Amino acid sequence: MPRTGRRPGTTGRTRERILQAARQDFSNAGYDGVTIRGIAAQAKVDPALVLHYFESKDGMFRAAVEFPVDPKEFIPRLLAPGLDGLGERLVKFFLETWDSPTGSPLLGLIRSVVANEEAAAILREFVTREVLARIAKALELDHPELRASLVASQLVGLAMLRYVVKVEPLASARMKDVVAWLGPTLQHYLTDPNVTRLSRAPRRQSPSRGAGDRARSPRRSSRSRSG
Amino acid sequence: MPRTGRRPGTTGRTRERILQAARQDFSNAGYDGVTIRGIAAQAKVDPALVLHYFESKDGMFRAAVEFPVDPKEFIPRLLAPGLDGLGERLVKFFLETWDSPTGSPLLGLIRSVVANEEAAAILREFVTREVLARIAKALELDHPELRASLVASQLVGLAMLRYVVKVEPLASARMKDVVAWLGPTLQHYLTDPNVTRLSRAPRRQSPSRGAGDRARSPRRSSRSRSG
Repeated sequence: MPRTGRRPGTTGRTRERILQAARQDFSNAGYDGVTIRGIAAQAKVDPALVLHYFESKDGMFRAAVEFPVDPKEFIPRLLAPGLDGLGERLVKFFLETWDSPTGSPLLGLIRSVVANEEAAAILREFVTREVLARIAKALELDHPELRASLVASQLVGLAMLRYVVKVEPLASARMKDVVAWLGPTLQHYLTDPNVTRLSRAPRRQSPSRGAGDRARSPRRSSRSRSG
Repeated sequence: MPRTGRRPGTTGRTRERILQAARQDFSNAGYDGVTIRGIAAQAKVDPALVLHYFESKDGMFRAAVEFPVDPKEFIPRLLAPGLDGLGERLVKFFLETWDSPTGSPLLGLIRSVVANEEAAAILREFVTREVLARIAKALELDHPELRASLVASQLVGLAMLRYVVKVEPLASARMKDVVAWLGPTLQHYLTDPNVTRLSRAPRRQSPSRGAGDRARSPRRSSRSRSG
């Protein structure tokens, strides 16, 4: 981030005021209803300052959620080698992120999401749009959004048992063991044709939003990226 | 529960005072360090009154955790038909409990565990001792406590995505679809010999407590209850 010439205290307070406005807007209006200009007006700053701190609407969204890693960066990197071993790479990346200083906001993220409907709504839209839709789009498999949400359910549950409630043997297990235990499950969710064959009617009344809209159209069952 | 002849207000307050003392004791001393007599003294009531409300130390533990279902009751019932289809029965029971009025304290339980280290410590001991150890003991499989904790990780993650963050398509999916998606995963964790074969050294320094102590001794790989 470029130096601004302001005192850090002022910078921090301004940034925090923009973030508060952003959280309110994302929660009230959803991602599509939010504009940089609107948030700037609400925070009583120039729109250029919002862009200076957060680069883009995406960047502001990620900061509002306090999501510690950038899906634009890590998802293509994890998917690049193809489908083979993707399950294990995902578990490994997830654990490495939690165990690194970068991952320290993750516990706070889980806490605020569980305590607070507004935080849950922002995270839901962020995860659906920025994480699941990207994975789904890249996968080129049938039911990509379902596959991605099954993967997310196993990883979030792992975090709850290993880092929040700290149940053994998961809490103290070595990373490579956890990768060996859960990798095949994620690989199954991502690539096994049976996951979707078993489900004849994957959703009820409320259609999935975000992930589905973007990723559903080219429904292929090819697994051309594998191996 | 038998009628006590007291006014409900007084009853509720006394019960709550006992529960507060119980939570403090379980958190400070662990299950084995807690006595009915000690809690009664702390709550300034007769030990008989503690037993009147909670029947046993186990019952008081469950009430302190606010765990809505009784593992002594549901675990044998789920395991009775054998290993076949156990994964699907577990998912179905879990969803039925969340969706029923009985399950309404579960969201509060997740909230307090995530917000509060003390609640996490009590739940950890409860889940390890009352849930995982019972499943592990009944399973008669190798590494029962590892298998049970992998099952728990998938179920807790399902609850987080479906009920807390509400990510689609998991949030709105029909119960039978979720059972079809996750049942095979739980079955794999419970019965697949590869789950443990892949892990050459399942734990690091801190040995697992509770579940391990009770369930580890007769390590059989027989799957005699299957079918």
